Amino acid sequence: MKEPVRIIGSYLSPYVRKVLVFLELKGIAYEIDPIVPFFGDDRFSALSPIRRIPVLIDDRVTLADSSVICQYLEERYPQPHLYPADIAERARARWLEEFADTRMGEVFIWRLFNQLAIAPAVWGEKTDASVVEKTQSEEIPQVLDYLESQAPAHGFLFGALSIADIAVASLMRNAALARFRIDAARWPKVASLVDLTLGLDAFAKLAVFEKRLMRTPPAEHRAVLAEMGAPLSADTFATRTPRRGMMKI
Amino acid sequence: MKEPVRIIGSYLSPYVRKVLVFLELKGIAYEIDPIVPFFGDDRFSALSPIRRIPVLIDDRVTLADSSVICQYLEERYPQPHLYPADIAERARARWLEEFADTRMGEVFIWRLFNQLAIAPAVWGEKTDASVVEKTQSEEIPQVLDYLESQAPAHGFLFGALSIADIAVASLMRNAALARFRIDAARWPKVASLVDLTLGLDAFAKLAVFEKRLMRTPPAEHRAVLAEMGAPLSADTFATRTPRRGMMKI
Repeated sequence: MKEPVRIIGSYLSPYVRKVLVFLELKGIAYEIDPIVPFFGDDRFSALSPIRRIPVLIDDRVTLADSSVICQYLEERYPQPHLYPADIAERARARWLEEFADTRMGEVFIWRLFNQLAIAPAVWGEKTDASVVEKTQSEEIPQVLDYLESQAPAHGFLFGALSIADIAVASLMRNAALARFRIDAARWPKVASLVDLTLGLDAFAKLAVFEKRLMRTPPAEHRAVLAEMGAPLSADTFATRTPRRGMMKI
Repeated sequence: MKEPVRIIGSYLSPYVRKVLVFLELKGIAYEIDPIVPFFGDDRFSALSPIRRIPVLIDDRVTLADSSVICQYLEERYPQPHLYPADIAERARARWLEEFADTRMGEVFIWRLFNQLAIAPAVWGEKTDASVVEKTQSEEIPQVLDYLESQAPAHGFLFGALSIADIAVASLMRNAALARFRIDAARWPKVASLVDLTLGLDAFAKLAVFEKRLMRTPPAEHRAVLAEMGAPLSADTFATRTPRRGMMKI
């Protein structure tokens, strides 16, 4: 029997979430080593030279980038399709995934979520209110304006659910965890798209773990998840002391 | 008759180079608006919301990320194949492309090339010798050690030429333009891979323009390229005043 796919990375990362939603939707068995990347050891650096999560390890390959992982899962396990069938739409879906991962990542993770959640919980630092204010008044509106220009009036971005919806919603889930709400009067299409996508069973199942981890110090994540029945891997790449200097969570 | 593909972006960008090499190898007609992204106008921001180059515009789609563009070109114009046929090798090739674009980009473009070429030419600033020194003594060796661990003794990374070789070589071409040479005694596999790839006709053809542009102020790039017979687009998204604040060149 084939071993389950191993995923290294925390449930609180939007990039891990994107991959876990893929695994859930495609019905692929997986186990997780739920580390926050700041706490990865040297073996983790060898697997993920940019110290990013998620890392996927299976019987054929080790991969350390969520976009590459999702494309691989789509090719190896085609059902259900999570990329548009049309070549031009598929390219646009990948572009929106890249926009979500990069630009929404900068704004919602590295500024908003980092200031409101990571800095206090991991580094014991105070939130910088001026960064939060500038992000909310300038950068977030630009991002949401662009998405609003790309989203349809109803339903998913390309008709059927795709990588683009999943990537956008994965990022917006972290925004929600940092208590950000989309103004549905100003950005009705984005608000509707995100609600629809985060309402899927795959996202709802993961949300249970996410909520609990938000109230749990990183060093206790594994123990708490074990108690909750999460599909944990037997061994871990975690250390007790966080390091700075990696690029993506 | 179909219009040629339009590419927006300078010959000096490794990400533009990757796409141009794809177009050359696949024999697709193209025209280029050779802007340095710092000089893009507001219409450019609308096409490329992260203000990245290259942008591809054709009869079906507008795309603003080099990895998404290359994958699109492969699907629309499959011959010759530039991604490995095997699913796991294809995923590893995409991972190495991501490593090149992100980590090699940070080290070779944002530190080395930026300090030695962009800062003096675009912003009129002095090179910071301490940044160059740290990059050369610490970061570059780490990157080359990792690539050396991935490269075969001879030939391309996955047998036939692929996106992985093209991405790595495109970045190393900028390193060469900043007068960096790989120590072939220390990293023989990487040195051999890069030589082999940069020796391809597609790279050599572009190198003629690159060399000349290195000695030309950005405002004169278009005029010089016109003189040299480059396939220029009729209109341009360039402005005369550079702006800071974009993410990739």
